[in-house]
Parts: sequence; structure tokens; C-alpha cells
Amino acid sequence: MSRIAFIGLGNMGGPMAANLLKAGYSVQVFDLSFAAVATAVAAGAAAAANAAEAVAGAQIVISMLPASRHVEGLYLGDSGLLAVIEPGALIIDCSTIAPACAQKVAQAANARGVDMIDAPVSGGTAGAAAGTLTFIVGGEAAALERAREVLQAMGKNIFHVGANGAGQVAKLCNNMALGVIMAATGEALALGVAHGLDPKVLSQMMAVSTSRSWATEVCNPWPNVLDNTPASRGYSGGFGNDLMLKDLGLAAEAAMGIGASIPLGELARNLYAMNSQAGRGALDFSSVVKLVAKDA
Amino acid sequence: MSRIAFIGLGNMGGPMAANLLKAGYSVQVFDLSFAAVATAVAAGAAAAANAAEAVAGAQIVISMLPASRHVEGLYLGDSGLLAVIEPGALIIDCSTIAPACAQKVAQAANARGVDMIDAPVSGGTAGAAAGTLTFIVGGEAAALERAREVLQAMGKNIFHVGANGAGQVAKLCNNMALGVIMAATGEALALGVAHGLDPKVLSQMMAVSTSRSWATEVCNPWPNVLDNTPASRGYSGGFGNDLMLKDLGLAAEAAMGIGASIPLGELARNLYAMNSQAGRGALDFSSVVKLVAKDA
Amino acid sequence: MSRIAFIGLGNMGGPMAANLLKAGYSVQVFDLSFAAVATAVAAGAAAAANAAEAVAGAQIVISMLPASRHVEGLYLGDSGLLAVIEPGALIIDCSTIAPACAQKVAQAANARGVDMIDAPVSGGTAGAAAGTLTFIVGGEAAALERAREVLQAMGKNIFHVGANGAGQVAKLCNNMALGVIMAATGEALALGVAHGLDPKVLSQMMAVSTSRSWATEVCNPWPNVLDNTPASRGYSGGFGNDLMLKDLGLAAEAAMGIGASIPLGELARNLYAMNSQAGRGALDFSSVVKLVAKDA
Amino acid sequence: MSRIAFIGLGNMGGPMAANLLKAGYSVQVFDLSFAAVATAVAAGAAAAANAAEAVAGAQIVISMLPASRHVEGLYLGDSGLLAVIEPGALIIDCSTIAPACAQKVAQAANARGVDMIDAPVSGGTAGAAAGTLTFIVGGEAAALERAREVLQAMGKNIFHVGANGAGQVAKLCNNMALGVIMAATGEALALGVAHGLDPKVLSQMMAVSTSRSWATEVCNPWPNVLDNTPASRGYSGGFGNDLMLKDLGLAAEAAMGIGASIPLGELARNLYAMNSQAGRGALDFSSVVKLVAKDA
Repeated sequence: MSRIAFIGLGNMGGPMAANLLKAGYSVQVFDLSFAAVATAVAAGAAAAANAAEAVAGAQIVISMLPASRHVEGLYLGDSGLLAVIEPGALIIDCSTIAPACAQKVAQAANARGVDMIDAPVSGGTAGAAAGTLTFIVGGEAAALERAREVLQAMGKNIFHVGANGAGQVAKLCNNMALGVIMAATGEALALGVAHGLDPKVLSQMMAVSTSRSWATEVCNPWPNVLDNTPASRGYSGGFGNDLMLKDLGLAAEAAMGIGASIPLGELARNLYAMNSQAGRGALDFSSVVKLVAKDA
Repeated sequence: MSRIAFIGLGNMGGPMAANLLKAGYSVQVFDLSFAAVATAVAAGAAAAANAAEAVAGAQIVISMLPASRHVEGLYLGDSGLLAVIEPGALIIDCSTIAPACAQKVAQAANARGVDMIDAPVSGGTAGAAAGTLTFIVGGEAAALERAREVLQAMGKNIFHVGANGAGQVAKLCNNMALGVIMAATGEALALGVAHGLDPKVLSQMMAVSTSRSWATEVCNPWPNVLDNTPASRGYSGGFGNDLMLKDLGLAAEAAMGIGASIPLGELARNLYAMNSQAGRGALDFSSVVKLVAKDA
Repeated sequence: MSRIAFIGLGNMGGPMAANLLKAGYSVQVFDLSFAAVATAVAAGAAAAANAAEAVAGAQIVISMLPASRHVEGLYLGDSGLLAVIEPGALIIDCSTIAPACAQKVAQAANARGVDMIDAPVSGGTAGAAAGTLTFIVGGEAAALERAREVLQAMGKNIFHVGANGAGQVAKLCNNMALGVIMAATGEALALGVAHGLDPKVLSQMMAVSTSRSWATEVCNPWPNVLDNTPASRGYSGGFGNDLMLKDLGLAAEAAMGIGASIPLGELARNLYAMNSQAGRGALDFSSVVKLVAKDA
Repeated sequence: MSRIAFIGLGNMGGPMAANLLKAGYSVQVFDLSFAAVATAVAAGAAAAANAAEAVAGAQIVISMLPASRHVEGLYLGDSGLLAVIEPGALIIDCSTIAPACAQKVAQAANARGVDMIDAPVSGGTAGAAAGTLTFIVGGEAAALERAREVLQAMGKNIFHVGANGAGQVAKLCNNMALGVIMAATGEALALGVAHGLDPKVLSQMMAVSTSRSWATEVCNPWPNVLDNTPASRGYSGGFGNDLMLKDLGLAAEAAMGIGASIPLGELARNLYAMNSQAGRGALDFSSVVKLVAKDA
């Protein structure tokens, strides 16, 4: 089995690495947080002192980082990992970043004889823990085949949507639609409640009607409609408002770069920005409902 | 079994009446279109010369009309049906109309000893034909119980969401969210396609991810992604753009009446209005994607 | 000189009546507020016990009321003023109301031999006090000529924009554009300030550039950019957020009634609704800037 | 008097250079268009074979280019002008570009002993021809003083709004507000006309009311309301839709970079994007009114 380096052990990366260990892989990890590294070591990982040490001898390098600049910083530049990753290795970047950044790093990797795929995920922290993530992959088909077994240890669905960067584009399309759907579902529930409807009954109806979505069925934004939702625990946990804001910003940049119009997507971006300014940036993104329903 | 009067045999009312006949009910029908009446008669209905004749002797009166003014015109006023419907009868209005109008007609009905529920539907023409509609009911619980058997002959799910008018509010909440979701899904697909993605692959990924919805899975707005969608037959059939525009207008009025904010809902209303002005008012509402994707 | 009845002595009506008195007119006044009546009486008006008494013997009846329902309530119905206003009199309604309501009351007035014009105003409380209001008139040209001298005692500009109701439509067009311009100016100032610009210098530049407007030059939404603005006194005084919200609601209704699209106008409506929900409904409408700039 | 190099002789740069020549300056020009160079030569300029030749011996270098990438390409890189501009010279960049780009080039210039100010303009082609432009300047006060005399030969107002990049931020604030104001004015006129109002009378009223703006008074978007507007000549000439789209994109990037919300600004960006997709990208930006008024 391949030796794997895993860089970035946050809310997503941590459980993903744990699933690789469970599947029997040898995994060298690095993260700036000692606590995160310690958790991985307890699960069987080998700790590396820095990212360069982590990739030494690895056939597969997986990164799960917050934003484009972290990915560029990790791989490119004089002290970037591309200078030390062995030719013939494969990089799987699971971060959600700008498509242009994914293409840029992939080109630099290819120039050094290293394969790379962008493989951002859908499924959230729950999917990461359960090993049921969806991987949305951009890159060469052959590179994906090399990655498939490893991806299957962390997820359930794999979609190959195109060349390098395409995974990021598709992820942004999904998250943009999700951001709009969540905020629109919040508007609908707020409107119903303001007219005296029971949010639970309204949600049950919507969940089997044409407006059904992950936002009504799984992560309902109204408190106490479903158990185990961020909304039912003060909007804690889940997918942070400012992460959705970041993804909608990436979608807007992707649209502006080609003159596309995404009127609902950009309005949603502004709603999440206002929600952040209202002090809810660190809460789950479903807290955007509070913009239109003070009592939610 | 109750004798039923059915007023309004359009794209929805026609198949609904047919399902009542199939279930063995005696149904007297009226519609301004001779062709619609003829189809119902062929299926076993009795034709009435006018609405008043249709309700003579009926214990249950069902109406399925385009807008508030038609419902008010049918029941209220000097020559309205409330003057001839027998006390003790039950009115089931399945039209999608303003909640205030539903309340007004119900009050007038009650004053004459006639029960009434508002029971707008979700499920479209396909659901009407298959007898799998969802009924979203506002009114007294006892009145709903009187209607239940009849509703079950036409649909699968029945939600009792509150007092008279509440069915309309809930329907508007569903359709508002649906209108936003459809247009946002169109934006996401258009953004992906403009970046070189295959709309079919992108839709398949979204359909199992967090942005999944009726708009990705059932009525995908991109041509040739799914069979049997309006989009795959030139946006013909389905739920007309101008009907969605009407519903979003009703939602906006419901919001304005109580000072609520529905930023995405009202932006969507404007998108469907622009789509109508672009000459696509009679096409399926998923044609709104053409606003942001000329080649769709 | 005509005897005038003046109904509605609020922030606008009070100073308007005072200007009529200054011009030498005999004015009978009515308002639900004793204090408002007392102020008018101190300025020379005659107090009436109710609206019907106020219009007794008046050739001209002026009303300045909050909303459509007040105007309908005043003139129509069994105890409405149309039952007691003398045939041959002229009604000048200066309220900002729904165009359809203005038309309805005018028709009822005409049916009783009473002329009527809708004459909503622009210029705010400052313009009302200074007698520099702009009157935006709908109705017959002959009726406007009968009113002209009286209007000139209260204002500076008179625009005849069409038949009954047209004054209201034009007023809504103005206020809709104003509502958008104010919020957009707030966005621009907030963006500049967040990038380190001085709001005063930025405003001075904008005030002589292509984005110049009443919002940069007269009622700047940023505190302490101009003296004597609501923004510089905690957003008190001025034109209330909820009045702008009302006018944008009327504009939205006017658009929905004919299938028109006003995407920016309806988005602005939602911004003012959110500003109201944030507790700023009674403040000047320029406080909408606080939605995008917490420190403003 | 200083010797000036002028790079970029388009619709704006051409007349600006002509005004410098009129004021007696010695001007060496370069543009990729022979015709543009020939016009400048006929007005007294000296033609240079390329940009590097144009700046030889120049104390002041003025650039007026379409976008960030052109400015970066002109000054930076191995064959960029900074390698040949004489230390002690002053660069005045009048292009509208990203603030971050203006800062980057200024830093590189300073590192080589060259002063630089960003001085984007407001006033359009008419202002460029008449020498009445407004310059919105970011950079050191001392550098602005060196530039002042030259700027006064091309414009009327000079605003110093902050350090390098601040001129670009302020310009974007102005143009973002302008973009919203123009589209909102179009919505208001379209709404009025759809209700039977005369666009000329409505515009005259608005122009002296609280919604007055450059869009009602100078560049009215409705055809034949004012003479000499783009709208009155088929939306030709003026400030192109796609240039406004570019500026709104820069404003959106400036907002996203700091998490700011500009809901109206981004909606306007989408309206201009849709107007471009409708085939009106090269027309004046006031043609955005056609999105909501087919007959305009």
C-alpha cells in the first residue's frame, strides 16, 4: 500500500486522515496545531516536524487547507513542497480553492514529473467522519485512477468532472447553489412563521414537495425543526458562515472572470457577508436565516 | 359516496376530476372550455350548463381556478355560488390564490353554513395525472376530515398546516423557495458549462450532493440532461413561467403585508418577470436559465 | 380667496397648513392630535371638531394622510367626506398612496360633482416648512388650474404628469429611485471607508462626479460628512425608514400589477425591511447604510 | 515645461493628450493604433516607435490603458518601462484598474526612484475633450504637486483621496454608485412609462426632485428625453456597457477582498452582465434600461 503524506488536519482533514489509517495506510501527517497532530498520532499516524518531512518517501500527498493562498504557499515557491516531493508521486488536493490556483499548482507539479488532481469534497464534517464524502475531481483520468483506492477509503462517491481545476469549478457550482438554497429556504420558513405557520409542519410539507432540499431535510435552518442540526444547538458546529462566504466569493470571481451573470449567487454572497457583519461569521451558515427572522 | 361538483378543468383540474371518476365518485363538472368538459364527460362525468347547475345537489364542491379574482368571482357576489350551494356542503378550493382571498371566501361560506378548506396542491400536471399530488390544507380539522377521502383519491400526501388561508401561505412558501432554487440551479449549471463542464456530469454530482433538489433531480433546467423534462423538449409543457411569476407576486404581497423581507424571493420574481418580457412567459419556468445562459 | 379645509397636520401637513395661513387663506383644520391642531390654531387656523365639520363651507379640501386606507376611510363609505363636501368643491390629496386608490377616490368624487387631483409632494419636512415643495399632480388640467394658486403658497414646482393616479405613479418612481440611490450611496461610502478613505473627501468627490445625487449632496448617509443631516444627529428626523419601506412596497405593487421588473427597487425594499427589523424603522431612511457599515 | 510621454490614445487618452499639446507641452505618444497616433501627431505630438522610445527623456509619463493587466504589462517585467524610465521621473496612471495593481506598480516604481500617482478620471469622453475631467488621485502629496499643473491642463477638479491605490478605490466607489443609479433610474422610468407617463415629463420632475442624478439630468437612459445622449442615438458612443461591467467587477473584488457587502452593487453588476449577454456590451451602459423596458 502507498505511503501517504497528509497536510492539514482541521475539521475535515482530521477525520479524513483517520479513515485512511483505519483502512491500513501508513500516513505521515503535518499540521500547525499540535493538538490535531496528537489526535492523528493516537490513531496511528506518524508525526512529521514540518510539511517537507511529511512528504519524504510518500507516493501520495494529500492536502486539505483553508484557501488558495495556503495551497500556493504549501507547494510553490523556493521552499515549497514541489522542490522535495519525489517525481512520480501523486498530489491529491482536497481544499476548496480558486480553479485558477488549482490549474497553476497542477502545471507546476506536472513540470516536475508529479501528477496532481483537485478533489474538493462535499458532505461536511459528518461525511468526513463517516467516510461518505463525495469527491469532485479535476485532472487526468489516469491520475484519478491512481487515487481512486485512497479516495474510496474516505468517501462514497467520486465524480470526474474534467481537467485540472474542473473539480474546483464544480464544487463552487454546488456550493453556490447550496448557499442560495439555504438562504431561500430560510426566507420561506420565516415568511410562513410570520404568518402563523408551525415551522416543523411547514418543513415537513416542503421536504416532500418541489422545494425539497438538503436545507429542508438534513440541515434545516430553523431551530428545533430537526434534531442534530446546527440550528437546534445555537448554530454551532456545521459549515461556518464565513466558509460559505469564501466559496461564494470564489464563485463570483469565477463568474466575473468570464463575464457570467449569477444574480442570485451574488445576492446570497452579500447576505452571508451581512450575516458575518452581524457577528455570526463563525456560526453555521444556516444562521443566515436570522437576517430575515430575528426570532429564529 | 358524496356527489361532487368540480369547477375548473384545466391542466390540473382535468386529470384531478378524472381520478375522482376512476375512484367511483359521481362528478358534475363545469368549465368555460367545451373541449375540457367533453373530455371529462367521456371519462364519466355529468356536464353542467353552468357553475350553479354543477353544484346543485352536491355535498362537495371542488374548484381549481387560475387566480384570486376567479375564486372570488365564482363564490361571492349576487350571482356567486354561495347563494346556491346547499348549507352543510363542503368547499375544497385547490386554486393557488392570495391567503387573504382564501380567508374572505371561507368566512362568507361559514356565514352561510358551508364549510371550506383551502387545499392548494404541489406536484404539477404529472402528479395530477398520477394521483400523487400533495395537498396543503388550511381550515378546520373537522372540515379536512370530511374532505380526506376525496383528497386521497387525487393525491398521496395531505398536510394540515393551519386555519383558513394557511394552506395558501404554505403553498406560497414552497413555490417561492422552488422559484429561487430553480433559478439558482440554472445559474450554477450555466457557470459550470461556461467553464467547460458537462452539464450532465455536473447535474449528476449535484443531485447527490448538498445542492440536490427537485430542480437537479426531476426538472433539470438544462436541455438533454434528463429525459422527459420541459428543458429537453424546448421548455414546453410543465409549470409556466408566468404561473411562477404569479406565485412569486403573491409571496411578495404576503411579505409586504407584514413587513417581512424576502430578498432572494423578490429577486427571483424579477428574474421570471424579465424572462417573461424576453418572450418566454408561456414556456416552463425552468426556461429562466436562458436569462444567464443563451445557449441553454 | 377660497376657504380651505386641511385634514392631517403631521410632520408634512402641519407646516403646509402654516404656509397657507401665512398666505392669507382662511383654513379650517382637523387632526386626531390635539397638539397638532393647537399649533395650527396658534398660527391662525380655525379648529374643527371632526373632518366633516372642517369641510363645511370649504371650496378646497386638502388631505395629507399616511396611507391608502386612511384616504379611502376619509372620503369613501357611509360616513365619508364625499357625503358632505359641497358639489363644485375641489379635493387636493397630497398623501402618497397607491395609484389605484387615488383613481378610485377621484371617480367617486367626480360622481358627486367634486373635482379631485392627486398631488403628492417631494421635498421633505424642510421643503414643507420653507414652502418649496414640488407637487406631482395627476388629474384634469382644469382641476389643476383651480388648485395652482393654493399649491404655489406651499411649493415651488408643480408638475402635471397625467390623469388621476399619475401623480402617485410619478411620486413612486421618484421615491423608488431615491431609495435605491440612498442605499447604493451608502454602499459606496462604506466600501471606501473600509479601504481607508475619508468619507468626507470621498463624498466631496462624488458630489461633483457622475454619481452625484441628493444622497451625496444634501442628505449624506454618513455621519458628520454634512451638517444638519439626519446622519449627523443619530439618524433622527428626516424621512423615516418605514415610510420609504411603504413607498417601495407601493412601487413593487405597481410593478407586479403590470408584470414589470424592478430588480434594484425590490432589492432596496428588502434592505429597508431588514433595516426595520434591525430596529431602525423609525430612524431616517439613510440609516440603511448601517446594514453594510456597522460603524456608520 | 516638462517633457511628457503619453501611452494610450483611445477615446479618453486621445483628447487628453490633445489638451496637453494645446497647453504647450512637448508630448511623445505611443499607441498600438496608427490612426490614433496620426491624430495626435497632427495635433503636434511626436510619434514614438514603441513605449520605451516614448518615455526616453520624459520627466512625466502618463498612461491611459484599458485594464490592470495592460498597466502591469506596460511597467513591470523584464521589458517593462520601469527598466527605462529615468529615476526622478513621475508616472501618472489615469487608467481605471484594481487598487492592488496600482499599489504594486507604485511600489515597484518607488523602488527604482520613480514617483507614481494613480489618477483615474471622471467625466467621460466629453470631459476629456473639453478639458474638464475630474482627477481622483492616490499617492504622495508631493507627487501630486509635481503633477498638478499637468492635470490642470486636462481637467477641472483634482481630489487627493489618500495613498497609492486610494484613487482607484474612490473611482470604483463613484462608478459603482453610478452603475446602480443608472439602472435604477431606468427601472423608474420604465415603470412610469408602463403606467402611461410621458418619460420626458417624468424625467423633468425627477431632475428637480430627490431622485435627481447625472442619469436623469445629463445622460438620461430613455431615448429622446434629452438631446445628445447615447440613448437618443441608439445608445452609441458614451461609456460602454462592458466598461461599466468591468468597473463593477473591480468594485466587487474590492468588496470581497475585505468581506464587505455591496448588495445593490453586485446586483447591478449582474444586470450589466445580462445586458452584455443580450448583445449590448458595446453600447452605452445606459442601454441597461432595455433589460426592463423592451421599447426603450
